[in-house]
Amino acid sequence: MIDHSYSFRVIYPETDQMGTVHHSNYAKYYETARWELFRSIGIPYIEVEKAGYMLPVTRMNFRFIKTTHYDEMLTVITTLKEVKGVRIWFTYKLYNSNNELINTAETELAFVGKDNWKPCSPPDFVVQAIEKYSSQ
Amino acid sequence: MIDHSYSFRVIYPETDQMGTVHHSNYAKYYETARWELFRSIGIPYIEVEKAGYMLPVTRMNFRFIKTTHYDEMLTVITTLKEVKGVRIWFTYKLYNSNNELINTAETELAFVGKDNWKPCSPPDFVVQAIEKYSSQ
Amino acid sequence: MIDHSYSFRVIYPETDQMGTVHHSNYAKYYETARWELFRSIGIPYIEVEKAGYMLPVTRMNFRFIKTTHYDEMLTVITTLKEVKGVRIWFTYKLYNSNNELINTAETELAFVGKDNWKPCSPPDFVVQAIEKYSSQ
Amino acid sequence: MIDHSYSFRVIYPETDQMGTVHHSNYAKYYETARWELFRSIGIPYIEVEKAGYMLPVTRMNFRFIKTTHYDEMLTVITTLKEVKGVRIWFTYKLYNSNNELINTAETELAFVGKDNWKPCSPPDFVVQAIEKYSSQ
Repeated sequence: MIDHSYSFRVIYPETDQMGTVHHSNYAKYYETARWELFRSIGIPYIEVEKAGYMLPVTRMNFRFIKTTHYDEMLTVITTLKEVKGVRIWFTYKLYNSNNELINTAETELAFVGKDNWKPCSPPDFVVQAIEKYSSQ
Repeated sequence: MIDHSYSFRVIYPETDQMGTVHHSNYAKYYETARWELFRSIGIPYIEVEKAGYMLPVTRMNFRFIKTTHYDEMLTVITTLKEVKGVRIWFTYKLYNSNNELINTAETELAFVGKDNWKPCSPPDFVVQAIEKYSSQ
Repeated sequence: MIDHSYSFRVIYPETDQMGTVHHSNYAKYYETARWELFRSIGIPYIEVEKAGYMLPVTRMNFRFIKTTHYDEMLTVITTLKEVKGVRIWFTYKLYNSNNELINTAETELAFVGKDNWKPCSPPDFVVQAIEKYSSQ
Repeated sequence: MIDHSYSFRVIYPETDQMGTVHHSNYAKYYETARWELFRSIGIPYIEVEKAGYMLPVTRMNFRFIKTTHYDEMLTVITTLKEVKGVRIWFTYKLYNSNNELINTAETELAFVGKDNWKPCSPPDFVVQAIEKYSSQ
């Protein structure tokens, strides 16, 4: 298990006419947050693709607890839960600037070959980085 | 239960550098599909907002089975499963033009007042339309 | 010169908290419209990429005349103005359902090789399709 | 004239299947950059809306000089050129991490009343902040 914190500000094009953030943006927030976690353990996602792998999402679940607004500063706590076989699991907790939990999510991704889209084991440098930084 | 079919074409800005559709777009596809279901039973979503209600998403789950590409024609089969209390549930099955199932999803939404964001019962015209068109 | 008409409906994720369409979406509308023009003359853009070419935008200009809203039906009149050297020019007029002109735009694109991103002449099948369908 | 520098990283959902940034995203980059300029002179855009005004875009022009990619750090130099009557003009220069100019743009926006969308003079606190920070 590896935790990482990533903060960002809600921008105008992410709002919709309800005056809140359109729900499709949370998938983008969490994608950015998980690759920042990857960067923090020395494996920027761009290196994963350069090594011939991709990580498409195979499942994602979201629970919307509280709304948010333009210009709010938000913080995602991302947790890399597990890597097993061809898959990797992350969970996310999103907080507003009052430290209120506003959204939770989980995503499952699969390692695939960049050229053939076939599921495959993660490359060694990814496995090693995750082992090195994992806490019990 | 009410079923509805909605077809559309994948456009270029929905692609990402994997050469497939970015996963955040599925939330947009299904939103458009459920409001087309609403339109088909005589209650365009715009009328719901005009009547003083909004329908934010409270939960959404996606399962990605097969990838898709630019310019493919896709079809969503949307099912309105249930309205109960302040909530409404939809499920979605997304097919490509070979009739292969490529994604499934479910969303839970809540009726809220447009001015106060407080959960509330759906307006009568929505309840009546759903009852009128529901099959057992 | 080749004209083409393309109609579509404004969807919810395209709105912003002004209650109108976020201005970044017009680039997407016009991209979709110009590839529908291409499809109408027998050269779907996907075939251009399959033949080893891409068409990135090199300039685009927009004038916003009147606002629009969720669920409105809009129509773009797209005009392919000219192909010359490595470049191709399109203009766009966007109308609402009252036939009011709400936006105009022009884009310049360049043919480039898919592998090397080097500017190049358009492939013959594109030149021939444009010549065949052009009016004076 | 007021200058401001804003840096950010290209994220995955902004890419398209050309392997570069989809051109519609530049409008979002520059919007975020101009409101960061506004924030830097003490008038966060959210305060402009709270005071009853909005700033829709009335014209925008883009020139694409060089492409960019996922995970690149980019820097926009935004210049507030002029406020006159109901309008305000900004220009933008976008640089990659090699300090190469990759895109230039200009936008014209109009002050309008939040409730009636009628063009109007900017509020005093905006005019005063701009005067205070303008260089000759």
